[in-house]
Amino acid sequence: MHRDPSPVLEFPYLPAPHRELMVSLLSTLDARLGSHLLPSSVPADVLSFHNDSATSFGSLDIRSGGHDSPVDFILESWLHCKLPTGALNITTIFGFLNASTEAPHLLMEFIQGSPTSLILFIDLLPRKDLVLHPQYLAEFYQDTHLEKLRQELENERYVQPYRSSSLYIRSVLSPTAIAVNINCGADGENFMEEIMRAQLSSVAKEVLQIWLDKCACSSAQSEASERHVLVQRDNLIKNKTVEIDLAANLPRMFGPNVAAQIVGAIQKAFRI
Amino acid sequence: MHRDPSPVLEFPYLPAPHRELMVSLLSTLDARLGSHLLPSSVPADVLSFHNDSATSFGSLDIRSGGHDSPVDFILESWLHCKLPTGALNITTIFGFLNASTEAPHLLMEFIQGSPTSLILFIDLLPRKDLVLHPQYLAEFYQDTHLEKLRQELENERYVQPYRSSSLYIRSVLSPTAIAVNINCGADGENFMEEIMRAQLSSVAKEVLQIWLDKCACSSAQSEASERHVLVQRDNLIKNKTVEIDLAANLPRMFGPNVAAQIVGAIQKAFRI
Repeated sequence: MHRDPSPVLEFPYLPAPHRELMVSLLSTLDARLGSHLLPSSVPADVLSFHNDSATSFGSLDIRSGGHDSPVDFILESWLHCKLPTGALNITTIFGFLNASTEAPHLLMEFIQGSPTSLILFIDLLPRKDLVLHPQYLAEFYQDTHLEKLRQELENERYVQPYRSSSLYIRSVLSPTAIAVNINCGADGENFMEEIMRAQLSSVAKEVLQIWLDKCACSSAQSEASERHVLVQRDNLIKNKTVEIDLAANLPRMFGPNVAAQIVGAIQKAFRI
Repeated sequence: MHRDPSPVLEFPYLPAPHRELMVSLLSTLDARLGSHLLPSSVPADVLSFHNDSATSFGSLDIRSGGHDSPVDFILESWLHCKLPTGALNITTIFGFLNASTEAPHLLMEFIQGSPTSLILFIDLLPRKDLVLHPQYLAEFYQDTHLEKLRQELENERYVQPYRSSSLYIRSVLSPTAIAVNINCGADGENFMEEIMRAQLSSVAKEVLQIWLDKCACSSAQSEASERHVLVQRDNLIKNKTVEIDLAANLPRMFGPNVAAQIVGAIQKAFRI
């Protein structure tokens, strides 16, 4: 069946290296998981939206996993806001697994406040309390050498550790989460392009590969007795993400009506 | 009953501001909790020990909580090693609560590698999975404004965030954990003394006060149904701490025999 490409893949406003990275990540995801995903069920006014004064634009697509897939859903989005100081571009990939597996979720978020500054999160989100489950920590975080990738990026010039202001978000992240602020200074546009094309691109692709191999495409099943807690914990993460991130920021960028539409579509896909 | 002061209180090798801070913290602890603690049960060769070549010295004291106290034990220690490059001084306060309460444990560790450099950890260690228990996060971490104290110290000149190389230790720490490296440079002895006497001392004392008020002296009881998991989680923290921290480092500093004695005394007090 021919499908028109989703508007989320167009990235009409992104700086070129940011766009190239996103296109590459999304096509890897699609090549590996696409055939196991249901068609998008997101309405047209969520696939593409803007605020009344046409200064903010966005696109959000969500595809659920098919029957027998460990994928709960894949969320892909971009937001673009014209600001007096320039433009804000936010791109997000969120790969959520269902309770048939206990393997980590995927989070990638790139918040580019200007051509020379970027805050980013790349992480496999733990599904279990790592203090109580050192085996889980060993399997998904130690043996996968995610720390090496984190250090590789954090040791680059212009890259600083970044902390979310939300203590809940900090708790959700793993101990190898990449959470950094890249600020190349007023004349640093070339540096930023270079970092995005080289180190950042390489690290993001490697983390995605680890998630695809070890998590989204692994046949390891969760214990039936543990599924209740997995679902409870995942629902808390979904609810809190909407509350802290979306419900707080979208109305500011798109006005209350458009924001309510987007949040509603996400809550429906999240089943919360 | 008169008790001789514990050798752990002497700190014969510590730089003066480090000693003053420790004496102040330990006397606050003792004034508030002392009457609820049993006498030390640690043998003389653990209260005071050194390696064969008399280049490393240490003192470790552990007092268990009395009947009806929510304190499991208070561990206080100092280690001193003469090194070719100077001296290493490590001081530790560990306040562990029992399963009658779910309130956080206290961890304070100051690792002074030279008169101008210090790595330190100050934290209330969560007893529960914070992702699954946002109420717990709110009660002990948000409402206590620990983040303000963390930022206060981290924003000081010469202070950098520090990450334990152990992913397990990172998982044990709370999202407001103070984990920093203070490095004042070759000629920075005065700066280090100033930071220890002013900002560090103030922050450490405030965190201790919060722990005493909200955790060690609170009458809030844990749910009987939750105690089994609390004990299981606490035992994992105890076991992993011994494995990662002590069993890995003490033999290097004190030789295998002295190290085994110290680790044995800790395991006995930890009941692991």
